[in-house]
Amino acid sequence: MDYQRVFTQAIDRLHAEGRYRVFIDILRNKGTFPNARCFAGHNGPKPITVWCSNDYLTMGQHPDVIAAMEEALHDVGAGSGGTRNIGGNTHYHVDLEAELADLHGKEGALLFTSGYVSNEAALSTLAKVLPGCVIFSDELNHASMIAGIRNSGCEKRVFRHNDLEHLEELLAAEAPETPKLIAFESVYSMDGDISPIHAICDLADRYNALTYLDEVHAVGMYGPRGGGISDRENAAHRLTIIEGTLGKAFGVMGGYIAADQVIIDVIRSYAPGFIFTTSLSPVLVAGALASVRHLKASCVERDGQQAAAAKLKEMMAEAGLPVMPSTTHIVPLMVGDPVRAKRISDILLAEYGVYVQPINYPTVPRGAERLRFTPGPAHNLEMMEDLVSALVEIWDRLELRLAA
Amino acid sequence: MDYQRVFTQAIDRLHAEGRYRVFIDILRNKGTFPNARCFAGHNGPKPITVWCSNDYLTMGQHPDVIAAMEEALHDVGAGSGGTRNIGGNTHYHVDLEAELADLHGKEGALLFTSGYVSNEAALSTLAKVLPGCVIFSDELNHASMIAGIRNSGCEKRVFRHNDLEHLEELLAAEAPETPKLIAFESVYSMDGDISPIHAICDLADRYNALTYLDEVHAVGMYGPRGGGISDRENAAHRLTIIEGTLGKAFGVMGGYIAADQVIIDVIRSYAPGFIFTTSLSPVLVAGALASVRHLKASCVERDGQQAAAAKLKEMMAEAGLPVMPSTTHIVPLMVGDPVRAKRISDILLAEYGVYVQPINYPTVPRGAERLRFTPGPAHNLEMMEDLVSALVEIWDRLELRLAA
Ligand SMILES: Cc1ncc(COP(=O)(O)O)c(C=O)c1O
Ligand SMILES: Cc1ncc(COP(=O)(O)O)c(C=O)c1O
Repeated sequence: MDYQRVFTQAIDRLHAEGRYRVFIDILRNKGTFPNARCFAGHNGPKPITVWCSNDYLTMGQHPDVIAAMEEALHDVGAGSGGTRNIGGNTHYHVDLEAELADLHGKEGALLFTSGYVSNEAALSTLAKVLPGCVIFSDELNHASMIAGIRNSGCEKRVFRHNDLEHLEELLAAEAPETPKLIAFESVYSMDGDISPIHAICDLADRYNALTYLDEVHAVGMYGPRGGGISDRENAAHRLTIIEGTLGKAFGVMGGYIAADQVIIDVIRSYAPGFIFTTSLSPVLVAGALASVRHLKASCVERDGQQAAAAKLKEMMAEAGLPVMPSTTHIVPLMVGDPVRAKRISDILLAEYGVYVQPINYPTVPRGAERLRFTPGPAHNLEMMEDLVSALVEIWDRLELRLAA
Repeated sequence: MDYQRVFTQAIDRLHAEGRYRVFIDILRNKGTFPNARCFAGHNGPKPITVWCSNDYLTMGQHPDVIAAMEEALHDVGAGSGGTRNIGGNTHYHVDLEAELADLHGKEGALLFTSGYVSNEAALSTLAKVLPGCVIFSDELNHASMIAGIRNSGCEKRVFRHNDLEHLEELLAAEAPETPKLIAFESVYSMDGDISPIHAICDLADRYNALTYLDEVHAVGMYGPRGGGISDRENAAHRLTIIEGTLGKAFGVMGGYIAADQVIIDVIRSYAPGFIFTTSLSPVLVAGALASVRHLKASCVERDGQQAAAAKLKEMMAEAGLPVMPSTTHIVPLMVGDPVRAKRISDILLAEYGVYVQPINYPTVPRGAERLRFTPGPAHNLEMMEDLVSALVEIWDRLELRLAA
């Protein structure tokens, strides 16, 4: 057994497919985001504009968030020092869970170290507690939900993306007594489209299924209090579990679920991914608490983001660039080839100081490689003009087709 | 299907077994740890002494760590805003990975959001890249390693705890060409014993197996530079992968592996738990960097911890308390029953302001329930005297047996 050879071959396969990844080494400039510094070259840090951050509302730089983190740092220190059960349950954790439960109109909430871990831990545990459970999963669900479903060991039925007829067909095919769980997202972050939450809940009612909604790309950004698409559409009370992250629009790090108390209690008591790990640093929890509270009360950031996204989509369409039909804040530009997507991204960074990451398989299907822009309240018109004219110039240089 | 009933029954089972957990709600007092405040009662926060923190060296309060975190907070903001591939790879991440690779004498290192995720992601991915791999796992391995092994879907052979003969028997039973991986820990954190690293590496050499060592409860605390037991015993170069946490002795949060560059590259490129999640907050990474650097150069904390642990073990043994034969900084006191362990812990907190968590199944086997003390450099003689006299009084009150 030649281990070295196997490992080297695994890496060679990535090079051959043009999807070996090189991390772009950056530091953001607090207070002037999306401005940042890039350490890629050898001539010291170079100024760049970030166009692919998931700190969607720039809350990671918000004075209230920074102040809350600084205060916690000085009050209690860096880490929690333990799992939630053993020494790592701070008063910040308790407060944030109450705040998140309230945000989604649920009895309780539970924090995890990330949104990934929330999905993995909650889905795998739920299905284990329900013997014989069948999970119905949208085909575009995120890797973390797929991991949770696979690790649950239960039966899975994949329904075509947002396809209610297909979902109903699959639900109807199971025995009425079979425990059922429908797992889906609100905003699908690579295409920027939205799921029909009420219609899925109608099916859940009809077939007595539980529902699990990932609102990772919506919390903070939709609904009058930032509770996500389920908040905007008054659907939160119909969902069994709502899952979210503290690492995107809330600008910090961590994940959570919100649900009835008994469900929170079950996950809290049985999920290894929750139990056997150091809890979130109180510094992060304090920052997230300030961020959630701010976005419950303020719509300025949400409105600014929606305006920026609408403007950028309009400018790209006018320039004939292949912007995809997103109905949300996400602005994807189709390229359709991993090598070309990387080339465009490399030119943007090297020549224009524009940082946008190419999105490759397995994040999107092969042949659907793209650039994905996330304009936020701090991206101004001048930045957008610079971006669009750079893209048009590169499209021209690489002899790509622009729309008439 | 009555979901509510199933969930309620799952919780009732825990109550019936006396292992339903209630989180103790605390805040530590920065600068005066192990002093803290407890929010359990209704009369406002009450002062307590923490005896069960895994911030083993009080680095979560170290001025260098706090200063580094504060600086990062003001320089770049709260969260990273993206995955390592997409906008979330900061210069701090790059620096810390270099520092950790150096700590363990390896070519590279890779950060994860936690030690749990490191183990889950690295083990499950390694075994997938090596078709037909068999994993040999110590029976007391941590839940996160067990999760990684299970999720790899490969064959697993469990060897009796630290039993070299049994391990060899299992290794010899496989075909020479079968890819093999031995997964074990250095310090087993519930008993406080240590594995025979060199002897296990000898077996790995003989049977051409890879080795994976979890040093979560040893990094920062053993070896001249805090590289763990493998540092102390000059064994780091013999191990394929060393895994550690930033959330215990380093006092912050996060996890990592260190290994040859090609292995780092494989995990980085193929592990969903690494790829599809927001990267560690740069604030945490900056703090961990300061902590690792400090403990590479300073032995004061390590020496203080060893002295405190030796003293507490001696005092407990002299008082006739059933202290277990730990050879490390961990001081476990056997109780052997979940209800009684919880009762002792409750009395300590309510009457003596001493916080130590009972350790129950599934963290330890049923019938081996215990209290687990983690004295550190900041636990002074007076605190120890208070603790031991409280324990003796409670042992007496509950009519438990003290040694002659
Ligand atoms: C839909 C979805 N769910 C969950 C996650 C994981 O969240 P986190 O980054 O907090 O781990 C992500 C992205 O990272 C995501 O896109
Ligand atoms: C042996 C062992 N490995 C891994 C972990 C997980 O590390 P972390 O707390 O950083 O997730 C723990 C404890 O939490 C542990 O005890």
